[in-house]
Amino acid sequence: QFQEDFAAKTKNIYDFLLVLSGAMIFFMQSGFAMLCAGSVRLKNVQNTMLKNLLDACGAALAFYFIGYALAFGGQENSTSTTFIGTTSFASVGPSPSFWFFQYTFSATSVTIVAGTLAERCQMIAYLAYSIVLAGFIYPVIAHSAWSNNGFLSITNSDPLLNIGSLDLAGSGVVHLTGGTVALLATLILGPRRGRFYDAQGEPLVEPKAFPGHSVALQLLGTMVLWFGWFGFNSGSALLLKIDEVGEVAATAATNTALSGAAGGVSALFTNLFIVERLTGEPYFSILVAMNGALSGLVAITSGCGVVEPWAAIVIGIIAGWIYIGASNLLVRLRIDDAVDAIPVHMFNGMWGVFSTGLLASPRLMEVAYNTGDYPGLFYAAGNDSSFNLLGCQVTLIVFILGWVCVTMLPFFIWLNYKGWLRADSLEELVGLDVSYHGSDFDNKYGDVNKEYVAAF
Amino acid sequence: QFQEDFAAKTKNIYDFLLVLSGAMIFFMQSGFAMLCAGSVRLKNVQNTMLKNLLDACGAALAFYFIGYALAFGGQENSTSTTFIGTTSFASVGPSPSFWFFQYTFSATSVTIVAGTLAERCQMIAYLAYSIVLAGFIYPVIAHSAWSNNGFLSITNSDPLLNIGSLDLAGSGVVHLTGGTVALLATLILGPRRGRFYDAQGEPLVEPKAFPGHSVALQLLGTMVLWFGWFGFNSGSALLLKIDEVGEVAATAATNTALSGAAGGVSALFTNLFIVERLTGEPYFSILVAMNGALSGLVAITSGCGVVEPWAAIVIGIIAGWIYIGASNLLVRLRIDDAVDAIPVHMFNGMWGVFSTGLLASPRLMEVAYNTGDYPGLFYAAGNDSSFNLLGCQVTLIVFILGWVCVTMLPFFIWLNYKGWLRADSLEELVGLDVSYHGSDFDNKYGDVNKEYVAAF
Amino acid sequence: QFQEDFAAKTKNIYDFLLVLSGAMIFFMQSGFAMLCAGSVRLKNVQNTMLKNLLDACGAALAFYFIGYALAFGGQENSTSTTFIGTTSFASVGPSPSFWFFQYTFSATSVTIVAGTLAERCQMIAYLAYSIVLAGFIYPVIAHSAWSNNGFLSITNSDPLLNIGSLDLAGSGVVHLTGGTVALLATLILGPRRGRFYDAQGEPLVEPKAFPGHSVALQLLGTMVLWFGWFGFNSGSALLLKIDEVGEVAATAATNTALSGAAGGVSALFTNLFIVERLTGEPYFSILVAMNGALSGLVAITSGCGVVEPWAAIVIGIIAGWIYIGASNLLVRLRIDDAVDAIPVHMFNGMWGVFSTGLLASPRLMEVAYNTGDYPGLFYAAGNDSSFNLLGCQVTLIVFILGWVCVTMLPFFIWLNYKGWLRADSLEELVGLDVSYHGSDFDNKYGDVNKEYVAAF
Repeated sequence: QFQEDFAAKTKNIYDFLLVLSGAMIFFMQSGFAMLCAGSVRLKNVQNTMLKNLLDACGAALAFYFIGYALAFGGQENSTSTTFIGTTSFASVGPSPSFWFFQYTFSATSVTIVAGTLAERCQMIAYLAYSIVLAGFIYPVIAHSAWSNNGFLSITNSDPLLNIGSLDLAGSGVVHLTGGTVALLATLILGPRRGRFYDAQGEPLVEPKAFPGHSVALQLLGTMVLWFGWFGFNSGSALLLKIDEVGEVAATAATNTALSGAAGGVSALFTNLFIVERLTGEPYFSILVAMNGALSGLVAITSGCGVVEPWAAIVIGIIAGWIYIGASNLLVRLRIDDAVDAIPVHMFNGMWGVFSTGLLASPRLMEVAYNTGDYPGLFYAAGNDSSFNLLGCQVTLIVFILGWVCVTMLPFFIWLNYKGWLRADSLEELVGLDVSYHGSDFDNKYGDVNKEYVAAF
Repeated sequence: QFQEDFAAKTKNIYDFLLVLSGAMIFFMQSGFAMLCAGSVRLKNVQNTMLKNLLDACGAALAFYFIGYALAFGGQENSTSTTFIGTTSFASVGPSPSFWFFQYTFSATSVTIVAGTLAERCQMIAYLAYSIVLAGFIYPVIAHSAWSNNGFLSITNSDPLLNIGSLDLAGSGVVHLTGGTVALLATLILGPRRGRFYDAQGEPLVEPKAFPGHSVALQLLGTMVLWFGWFGFNSGSALLLKIDEVGEVAATAATNTALSGAAGGVSALFTNLFIVERLTGEPYFSILVAMNGALSGLVAITSGCGVVEPWAAIVIGIIAGWIYIGASNLLVRLRIDDAVDAIPVHMFNGMWGVFSTGLLASPRLMEVAYNTGDYPGLFYAAGNDSSFNLLGCQVTLIVFILGWVCVTMLPFFIWLNYKGWLRADSLEELVGLDVSYHGSDFDNKYGDVNKEYVAAF
Repeated sequence: QFQEDFAAKTKNIYDFLLVLSGAMIFFMQSGFAMLCAGSVRLKNVQNTMLKNLLDACGAALAFYFIGYALAFGGQENSTSTTFIGTTSFASVGPSPSFWFFQYTFSATSVTIVAGTLAERCQMIAYLAYSIVLAGFIYPVIAHSAWSNNGFLSITNSDPLLNIGSLDLAGSGVVHLTGGTVALLATLILGPRRGRFYDAQGEPLVEPKAFPGHSVALQLLGTMVLWFGWFGFNSGSALLLKIDEVGEVAATAATNTALSGAAGGVSALFTNLFIVERLTGEPYFSILVAMNGALSGLVAITSGCGVVEPWAAIVIGIIAGWIYIGASNLLVRLRIDDAVDAIPVHMFNGMWGVFSTGLLASPRLMEVAYNTGDYPGLFYAAGNDSSFNLLGCQVTLIVFILGWVCVTMLPFFIWLNYKGWLRADSLEELVGLDVSYHGSDFDNKYGDVNKEYVAAF
């Protein structure tokens, strides 16, 4: 009876810790909001803020009514592999702490997209895709990768290649998903007016930068995200069916600090070096440093509890490089991403999942998953099963990319065809706050481009 | 001996969790501050920020020297019903974690008022009422509703109507109290100059909106409050004398997410619909969405751990409607509330207490309070005791309204009579930062209304 | 076996709580950043934000590769007294949670300096000292005061004067260290152009105030710091080798609330009184209130878990006075501190360490350290050993001051000699954002002083 009491007390404490971690993840919504607020021009701040608030609200309701059921419904009663869950609609399932924690992940996935589409997307389109993403697209991925019934899940009773994919806190499930949706949306939506083309539609020689209105808010957003990330990565350890949750959580926190730091430093100095080579005038770009740090954080999310600290630093350094490369690539392809969410979340989401397949350590996998037989390629090279984990990781990446493209591309094309996607051109030029939120047209901050309004 | 060790360790962990939750609640001070900062005009930012800082400081000292003693002093040694506690003055009582947690609640109650009075209240009046509220008015209410000796307390050894009132985290004790004080204060203080009347004192046909200077800070404030609210509601579960604290805390967190989300969505779209009907031009009001979400959060605070998730959504939806109705009512009555704290905290504080009387579930009351015999009217309808809980809830509302009116109305009238309440008219026009904080008169942001200064 | 399970579970929960506390301390980086952002002029915001981000990143890498080893390497295997640790380079040591927690302290120490040097320091100098401080200077102090092998440590097997110095969460180790570095740096660096001298180099009769650009961000920074401080002070209790960690943590939280509150109130009203005496026009200075609160927080950090709540209030009140005195002293000596970090962190860091020697209570020392034989002078007066603890505290202060001066003074002189310390004069006048971060020269906010540019 005393042992039962002990088990019950421990479970209750874990539930409470899950709530605290979930609250920290929820707080990341503020981080994304501040990052967006700082990155847009003043004429669009209201619009952007409302989108950030609404996706937290919309995701909660969509995840309650449908999303949770599709992702995790019935996983405790069955070991069969399924495509989606089919019970627990309009319910929080048997464990409210688990529901709350998973909700905060789904909301994060949704809010990643907000920044990319800033300054030109209609409110109605944003609402539509938010609900579809939190209610259907994301849950299918979470089901496949994280529920006991998922075909890619490491907790499946008969996992893929004997191991399944290892995405501890969701570089793939959360960040790659959100980032890929952002890419598809901006492809259909097109760039902001005046970013890559002039008023007559001719391509500009040099893309026009649209600097945000507050670096302080951008930095605040970055640091709030980093803070929340400790709940994101360490909190995920609480879901493991092991005794050493504290140790895995601490490893995750340590790696989160180191990879973010490495990403920021790597991106800042690589960019400094490149700019000096190209222009002869080196300068320190805080935007690059912030996005580099966020890239390191995204990349370590997948393997946070199963790679050694030195590997976290390596992952972070490469994440910084990937960010710079991908960011420049997007500009060259004239793909407009108002906050660089695609390089940060999509490209480094992929790198995060992939790098776990390279660097997951057998010692730490033994602690976290009670199995050290199929570690990353770096440790397994030469074994019969050296590519098992990496194979599963690549499968996860391909699955997420494929699933998101197959479902969201037609959806955005349809929205665009209906005329619900892109804001009216004049609205865009004077700022979305005027038409959607009743602000004054007479923008006193003067960030309305008169030339384009005239050309209209 | 091992069992003792186990009990001691568990208690120490709970103490630590209480500290973490209390810290999150303390952080809500930043949320209120940012909400206020964004909602006032630049010429009053310093003044508003100082008030927000000072009430956190003043509440700590007032609660230490007097408030705690009146609220909880001696409750561990006696089961008799009393009006106030009489021991532990200038002390943190036997449990520092309990003191710290309760302090953060009292500070929240005080800071609710700051926003409503912004831009026109004297510093000295603000100080006076802060100390009186944290040191005396609030503690009497906390004593009655939460201490073991309170006549309305569910933990009273012989509770009212066999059950007592159920205000788990304080829709009534904290929010209704703060909101009612705000209403009384603004009634005596009067509206800001130029809001409802022109320079000659004639009523305006259309009230003049005083838009805040930063939507980004308002949203930041809202999200910080929401984050802190998870500590507010879930942390309160730690005070229950039960084993399943984690489960109650997780239910509270889930309901906090759902009710806030429902409130935000309900208020936003209801307002959209109304505005379209009235003007033909729909628009999305982020202010309404933010206050709707906060309304849902206030309303769920009372029953967070004892209502089912579907009920949390219902409570949130209605909270959104109540907000819109009450906000419009105040404008019609020419009652000036700079941040809409009265509709959010007072009206939805009442709704929160009342709705618990309707929707508290017997299953969850059994978990949280070891008694499922007197649930909400929805479950109890038809029983002999169907109105017991609802009766207690209404009693709590009436008691808070009555106690606050009886004590604070004379107090504010007296302050006003002495000339200590309202800032000087010229001071108000040029902004309080000039006279109280030594800012330049020559306000470069130009939000000083020259017409009123001339008419002065 | 069940007992082992119990011990393991408890340890894992403590590890998790340490991670949560560490995350809160990490979040203090945002607090310092917002405080700096609000305190500088707009033309230097980017530069200041980048420094704040980089020191979090740089400290993580420096502490991983070198700092941790010097501070704590090998302490678990040896009881001898050493000057530095010599194992665990490029490693997080045996306990990742301990590493993570200690990292956040080292990063705090580094970031304290950022504000003081704002608006005139070269990026390269900032990077250099950040790495030196986190990698070498700070670790030596942390080793001496906190590791089991430190000559001043209370956990040394044969402590100084039978007790060792008591710096629970680091008024000395963290704040005095950071503050002293800030003082040395600003002495060598010199004041901002135009602050104390006119364009011709003649001393001004009245120093020119350089008001920051956002009080709202300053207040946000202050409140975020206060929030994080609960993790800082309460989290430190988790490292004590006792069962009552929760009780010590709760005492620490309570004292943190009370001392901060007392500091804010004491500084605000003392300043009000002085200003009225000098000028006849009283005014409420929010900057003084904020720095007073921070002073109270710094001062209580040393003894947070071992002084009674009334003593915390006394410590806070005096901290407020010390802040006002030290701040005025610096202005008189024409030492320029852009955010008053020296009065807050250095002077009150000393006061914190010293006051613990006066007021540490035997009852609480018994709980926290299992020894109540050498309490503060207030309790011990008259005993044979009445000055033991105070002696150790003074030794700690002298050691930190001496070590920092001996190492950092030559370092800054060398940096200055090489021309790497001070930004170019013209750069300083137009704002560091132009030259380092590629902003427009044509500063639309008009905070470039034309007179000085002309005189250049």
